[in-house]
Amino acid sequence: MARTIQSLERAAAVLRLLAGGERRLGLSEIASALDLAKGTAHGLLRTLQQEGFVEQEAVTGRYQLGAELLRLGNSYLDVHELRARALVWTDDLARSSGESVYLGVLHQQGVLIVHHVFRPDDSRQVLEVGAMQPLHSTALGKVLCAFDPVAHSEALDGRRTDFTERTVTGEDRFETLLETVRARGWAADVEETWDGLASVAAPIHDRRRMPVGAVGITGAVERVCEGEELLPRLVAAVRDTARAVSRDLGALRF
Amino acid sequence: MARTIQSLERAAAVLRLLAGGERRLGLSEIASALDLAKGTAHGLLRTLQQEGFVEQEAVTGRYQLGAELLRLGNSYLDVHELRARALVWTDDLARSSGESVYLGVLHQQGVLIVHHVFRPDDSRQVLEVGAMQPLHSTALGKVLCAFDPVAHSEALDGRRTDFTERTVTGEDRFETLLETVRARGWAADVEETWDGLASVAAPIHDRRRMPVGAVGITGAVERVCEGEELLPRLVAAVRDTARAVSRDLGALRF
Repeated sequence: MARTIQSLERAAAVLRLLAGGERRLGLSEIASALDLAKGTAHGLLRTLQQEGFVEQEAVTGRYQLGAELLRLGNSYLDVHELRARALVWTDDLARSSGESVYLGVLHQQGVLIVHHVFRPDDSRQVLEVGAMQPLHSTALGKVLCAFDPVAHSEALDGRRTDFTERTVTGEDRFETLLETVRARGWAADVEETWDGLASVAAPIHDRRRMPVGAVGITGAVERVCEGEELLPRLVAAVRDTARAVSRDLGALRF
Repeated sequence: MARTIQSLERAAAVLRLLAGGERRLGLSEIASALDLAKGTAHGLLRTLQQEGFVEQEAVTGRYQLGAELLRLGNSYLDVHELRARALVWTDDLARSSGESVYLGVLHQQGVLIVHHVFRPDDSRQVLEVGAMQPLHSTALGKVLCAFDPVAHSEALDGRRTDFTERTVTGEDRFETLLETVRARGWAADVEETWDGLASVAAPIHDRRRMPVGAVGITGAVERVCEGEELLPRLVAAVRDTARAVSRDLGALRF
């Protein structure tokens, strides 16, 4: 078994540091945050800069993430089979539902958005591809927790922040909630993550019946809910989409 | 001066390899493409996999780029000052022109698209954020070559592919073309990169009057050209946008 390479692990830690919190940091800040000697940190930053993974601000000398990450992230999407199979179906879902559509996969301790179709109206919207959503409170996240054991243990082990008054954080209530998700085959999030917004999501399975991701819509509670409940036609549309993408991935119709 | 770190350079080479061409490669293919011992390549891949930079296909064992690159690429965009300043202006440009808008910066030997606003109609469009465009033939690229000496020498030293019959590849003609771009303050691409498509772009300057990027629109020649020429109202709209973003970045109105 090959060993892992320390300098590479440290370089990844530098990039993670620059991706969170401050995002523009000086050499000393980086060295002290990662408990590295300044010379070691400088060698890492110099190489990361040469390869385009970090950039240095001309005026302040502070470091930030570099353009090569965007190029590589785009290449990652190009080769993403789930996303490729879902493109047409998610477009159709945005059109039929009139709401924003998100496709997410488990990544580290959250849901990574790999595709986002804007709500089909003229409003200004911000693309969220590459953004992370919490596992325990979002519709996409709950679907992954209910059907993917790895996601489940990430959510149980991780911190479950109460984003709103409605967020379920206690372990027992969270497990009960996931049982409902498994029984119904879909998950909802009615103002549990963002005030005023509700989501519904369903799981996508591949040819080995493994849960490989989740697809869902998000919209203003006034539009997508009646009382406390998601509109049945939206639930049905999301589940139809999840089934269609699963079939395209080779899942049996069972 | 700190030295660069060989294992990090090699890891970057692995990622570049997986970002181009085949995109799913086995251990032996990666080792032989990069002229590395198999054990060395395995150590790199193992660490890259642990950090989320590469993923291994369960069935074939082949490697491909990993999800962490998408997350980091998104963080890069979040901290991109030019892009943040340009969001509103580029939305307005898409609305007023009725065409797709692109914002690009010099990266390596090409133009990296850091923002893309869809053409405001109901057609299916593919997001091109993170994609690269050639420097010598596109409107964005020519603007960068005309105003940024680094881009200029990249285009002169690099291979200038003839994508269509109209692509300018010869050095003398290319230099003459850039002189025109400098004199007019904008660049066009009428079917020099893609058959049937034309673009117009203008430079964005920062507070130190450095060219930091280019903004432009792209559309079907039938819509955006009259004969061989871009419609003057579209040229004016693109230049207005470039000036507005430059002012937001602190450039003098000169």
